[in-house]
Amino acid sequence: MAMAKLVVLLVALAAAVGSCSAWELNIRMPTARDVEAAAERLEEDVAAPLIHALRPVLGSGGQLWRRAGVPCDSWRLAVEAYNKRDWRMVPAYCERYVGHYMLGGHYRRDSRVVVDEAIAYAEGLKLAGNGKEVWVFDIDETSLSNLPYYATHGFGTRPYNATSFNEYVLEGSAPALPETQRLFYKLIALGIKPVFLTGRTENQRAITVKNLRRQGYASWDKLLLKPIGFKATAIAYKSGERQKLQNAGFIIVGNIGDQWSDILGAPEGARTFKLPDPLYYIG
Amino acid sequence: MAMAKLVVLLVALAAAVGSCSAWELNIRMPTARDVEAAAERLEEDVAAPLIHALRPVLGSGGQLWRRAGVPCDSWRLAVEAYNKRDWRMVPAYCERYVGHYMLGGHYRRDSRVVVDEAIAYAEGLKLAGNGKEVWVFDIDETSLSNLPYYATHGFGTRPYNATSFNEYVLEGSAPALPETQRLFYKLIALGIKPVFLTGRTENQRAITVKNLRRQGYASWDKLLLKPIGFKATAIAYKSGERQKLQNAGFIIVGNIGDQWSDILGAPEGARTFKLPDPLYYIG
Repeated sequence: MAMAKLVVLLVALAAAVGSCSAWELNIRMPTARDVEAAAERLEEDVAAPLIHALRPVLGSGGQLWRRAGVPCDSWRLAVEAYNKRDWRMVPAYCERYVGHYMLGGHYRRDSRVVVDEAIAYAEGLKLAGNGKEVWVFDIDETSLSNLPYYATHGFGTRPYNATSFNEYVLEGSAPALPETQRLFYKLIALGIKPVFLTGRTENQRAITVKNLRRQGYASWDKLLLKPIGFKATAIAYKSGERQKLQNAGFIIVGNIGDQWSDILGAPEGARTFKLPDPLYYIG
Repeated sequence: MAMAKLVVLLVALAAAVGSCSAWELNIRMPTARDVEAAAERLEEDVAAPLIHALRPVLGSGGQLWRRAGVPCDSWRLAVEAYNKRDWRMVPAYCERYVGHYMLGGHYRRDSRVVVDEAIAYAEGLKLAGNGKEVWVFDIDETSLSNLPYYATHGFGTRPYNATSFNEYVLEGSAPALPETQRLFYKLIALGIKPVFLTGRTENQRAITVKNLRRQGYASWDKLLLKPIGFKATAIAYKSGERQKLQNAGFIIVGNIGDQWSDILGAPEGARTFKLPDPLYYIG
């Protein structure tokens, strides 16, 4: 049945799309409407047909993992629960699965639940309201999404290419992750100051600010970028920066990121939140 | 289509089953064959028909969560990634979802990937082989499964009932979790000694030993149970016991549990593994 639907969609799309530029134009973040639609279908398989109209059908992960031994959904769970560590690429046979996950409603739904928890937690806090209470936000795959890049580069199944990825970053076009943005403004309304803490380097400050502003972020308290040439693991760098915040009298009431390295390492913050990210791993 | 299948199954089962005792008899851990079968179907909906032949159909979580706002699969991910904490019960509308997850191939598949990671990690260790290297195993939902109990008590959707749960424990009939048992014997073969560390209390030692042995566990190094009347959080109790192990010269090379409270709190062990558990939360 799913196959028949896909064929219908492919025929319709072949007529409608016609060129690769249409493909580029059609990459966008799932909207609330997409989420609703996905809920109605309850079939991830038809969630993001455009992407698959323009790339070879790789066969469902459901067939291919049986040789590899790791079903793509179990692989993703192992990533999110920090059982799978130090992985370098998404398994090749999971490209389609991850594509569906990211572009269908699933990624958005999972993110929404995380943000709902974060907001419930923040609303339950007894705040001192002294202007020293902050919340740490990672940027990539937390505040801004690089999905437009990853969707055209194999959804994490290909080796990291610093050159092409940095070119993408310098466009300053990464869309906001809407659930995170909802948290961001909720915290400001509660009197908790957002602090961006990112592995992006100082030389990307201007374009990062531009990108954040273009995407509707404003009124953050700090934007902490990594000094150029700074050598340390993400955990060491980020926990060091959080320590500096604490030393300066700030109380980190919350911390949200898509990588475990965003939220591990003392001081972690009073409460941490892990957004989904099946695209890449930063140790 | 799934609905039609379900109806066919229900009719067939109504003829075949006839009484509630058949239901009791049919609860069992998913086998490797079940996992294969589930992979072929790729439809969780038909994985565990028996359970639903004998209880009212609750409607799919896919319909009901839309009022509640939390899809059951996103809820489960939030539990596994430690975003959802201090929850007391599975959302009522997720009973069917959790039942399918646990009794179909999905739970087993997810557990298998965790154990595969644990074994790969253990095999990669440079061991001193001095008999001091240990691996900490939780018991409930890690080494032994209480699924036969939870399957007849709402899959975590009802308040915890200490009386009926303890009665179940005292039967000593909880089946082994086969993936964990595979890890257990692999570690012994590698020269790493298993240590059970459980929230079960000292007065349950005899039945716990009996249950573990019946289910094929043998040759563990220690079985650490909680003193009766000991008041502390699970994290405080378990990390305290791990500290004692370290003080006695043991090296905790690994630690596996189904609760975050099994694997958080220094000393955690050199590497931790989180098995899935959507049935209950211990803080």
